[in-house]
Amino acid sequence: MTDFVYLDNSATTPVAEEVRQAMAPYHSVDFGNASSLHSFGRRAHRAIEESRAEIAELLAVRPDEILFTSGATEADNLAILGTAFATEDHRHIVTSKTEHHAVLHSVAWLETRGFEVTRLDPDGTGRIDPQQVRDAIRSDTLLVSIMAGNNEIGTLQPIETIGAICRERGVLFHTDAVQAYGKIDLPIENVDLLSISAHKLHGPKGVGCLFVRNGVRLVPLFHGGGHEKGRRSGTENVPGIVGLAAASRIAFRDRAEVTRRMAAYRERLIDGVGRLRGTRLNGHRTMCLPHIVNFSFQGIEGESLVMKLDEHGIAVSTGSACSSPNLEPSHVLVAIGVPLSMAHGSLRVSAGRQTTGKEIDRFLEVLPHVVEELRRMSPFKVGG
Amino acid sequence: MTDFVYLDNSATTPVAEEVRQAMAPYHSVDFGNASSLHSFGRRAHRAIEESRAEIAELLAVRPDEILFTSGATEADNLAILGTAFATEDHRHIVTSKTEHHAVLHSVAWLETRGFEVTRLDPDGTGRIDPQQVRDAIRSDTLLVSIMAGNNEIGTLQPIETIGAICRERGVLFHTDAVQAYGKIDLPIENVDLLSISAHKLHGPKGVGCLFVRNGVRLVPLFHGGGHEKGRRSGTENVPGIVGLAAASRIAFRDRAEVTRRMAAYRERLIDGVGRLRGTRLNGHRTMCLPHIVNFSFQGIEGESLVMKLDEHGIAVSTGSACSSPNLEPSHVLVAIGVPLSMAHGSLRVSAGRQTTGKEIDRFLEVLPHVVEELRRMSPFKVGG
Repeated sequence: MTDFVYLDNSATTPVAEEVRQAMAPYHSVDFGNASSLHSFGRRAHRAIEESRAEIAELLAVRPDEILFTSGATEADNLAILGTAFATEDHRHIVTSKTEHHAVLHSVAWLETRGFEVTRLDPDGTGRIDPQQVRDAIRSDTLLVSIMAGNNEIGTLQPIETIGAICRERGVLFHTDAVQAYGKIDLPIENVDLLSISAHKLHGPKGVGCLFVRNGVRLVPLFHGGGHEKGRRSGTENVPGIVGLAAASRIAFRDRAEVTRRMAAYRERLIDGVGRLRGTRLNGHRTMCLPHIVNFSFQGIEGESLVMKLDEHGIAVSTGSACSSPNLEPSHVLVAIGVPLSMAHGSLRVSAGRQTTGKEIDRFLEVLPHVVEELRRMSPFKVGG
Repeated sequence: MTDFVYLDNSATTPVAEEVRQAMAPYHSVDFGNASSLHSFGRRAHRAIEESRAEIAELLAVRPDEILFTSGATEADNLAILGTAFATEDHRHIVTSKTEHHAVLHSVAWLETRGFEVTRLDPDGTGRIDPQQVRDAIRSDTLLVSIMAGNNEIGTLQPIETIGAICRERGVLFHTDAVQAYGKIDLPIENVDLLSISAHKLHGPKGVGCLFVRNGVRLVPLFHGGGHEKGRRSGTENVPGIVGLAAASRIAFRDRAEVTRRMAAYRERLIDGVGRLRGTRLNGHRTMCLPHIVNFSFQGIEGESLVMKLDEHGIAVSTGSACSSPNLEPSHVLVAIGVPLSMAHGSLRVSAGRQTTGKEIDRFLEVLPHVVEELRRMSPFKVGG
């Protein structure tokens, strides 16, 4: 698989060698349970606290505001269900139609338990206007959950302004920063809860964290041994936590160089794909994450495109990996008004730190042939 | 640390070399997201399904009855909260006073949400009489949760008979099998939900699974991408899942040999510690897990014993690691009637597959000196 071109880094990333090395001792040498009193336990505890301090410093928050989880889905659920269970009288939540399913399905479940949810419509580029948030907030609003950068189309949200509105109105603000963390500057002065995943950032699967601003009341999802100050019980995943910190460290350290390369790839992709007839760029042209770009192809099924490109040794996706097995059109593309025929033919190309210019060239070289081949087989006619 | 004697394998275990090797390719080679359509995704998906089939076969259940989680705390919470959220009218739960905190604190939280809980008293060895379960079941009982083998004192519960009673009465039966899985035969014909952890079995931290018998209704704890057939959203921890399967495989393969050794160590420990004055074996003499043995020492604090032994290069624990930082006496020892003075001076010694007879000898050689030293410093007098 060494010459396979992997351009699906928004779905998941290979663990970086530095991350692997950082984790290695914690499997079978310093393998202690961080709650144990003996030296194995104390070393594990220290590794966790150093990781916590490191991530807190990168985010410019306090270490005790970082709570480790099994990943971003847990972090999103903990942010939403945890604050919802902690309130009696604030039973209204504001979110957007382009959020990750971990947010959308959490709030939908809360609707079955008596909560009310307002789902804001983005504009055609995927942006939410802060004024929409201001207008949606009610006296019984508990929480606003708006992601930092979209996982399918890369569009950035004005979280700084949205956060300021929430702060002013005394409403909690959660942001899913899974795709944005380590890629862009995150202005989180007015963010109360923020979700992070390791495996989207060349860290291991099965670990993430939730920033919880001091003072935010949270009912845990897991009850038990009282780990993470009672907010998340369960033996800490020491190697995973060390891996998350290492992945964060290298992402922030190399961010300028990596995102400059990614942004250049993105431009080449937009230019190259734009030359093909019957294509469309989904998302915002400039207010976007550097590593994600999403296109629609008229007259083609996204799934067929993914499978054909795979045959040619190129891995990309059609929308989010998290909902790939179902063939519904992407809720994000529907929300930004992409016509159904185009929404079905969408392709997400996402770069990682390992992505090379040659791989982008290879994708742009193969793509036109695959598109032509699929269109020849398609019953739909493509306008010139 | 190579000559450090690690006898705290109930807290956590080193990852076995075979497990490490099985996991290795899934970090940076076959690193795909199992939901992705391309070949990276398909290989990850296959690895998960093969792991699921393997664990199902070891438990003699169906693969689609195995649901991967971030560990046993999540599995216990999912079993208890998941079935509780799925019911409207059955709002009574039966459990015992010696359960793991992941069970006890879950049911306690449900009490704050309108559930009623009956907590059975064990006998002096930690055993629950199945008749107690029969007597406690009411017409509105949803669930009985009784662990297979206790994590502090090793006492086994008659889960086969308890399960039969639950089945007969139409009540769900959950068992926390974290310490028992891979160590003893688990008669689970009448078990509906069963929790497993990888890191207690020489697998990685941050992964476990819940057996959920087909037909059991479960509301997920995490809402999102719909992974695990909608019952547990979140990108699958592929290396972790592969590691859990590998750890299970080697545990079942080597079980006869490993447990024979462990049982012999246990006898030597009981014999050796029994020679010291002012000591007591906590738990059942024979109906017990092979790898756990728990003693009380009159006139000594368990924490001091752990710290002194650690200075001598021996890692053991006082009760469960999950509640070590608090200095309350163990709820398990209190429940089986150990006097408070003795409950404070308890020590759990637990073996792993790597434990050698020489390590047991070393422990038995060092222990009397440490006990004497601590008793000399103690204000309490020890009866002869």
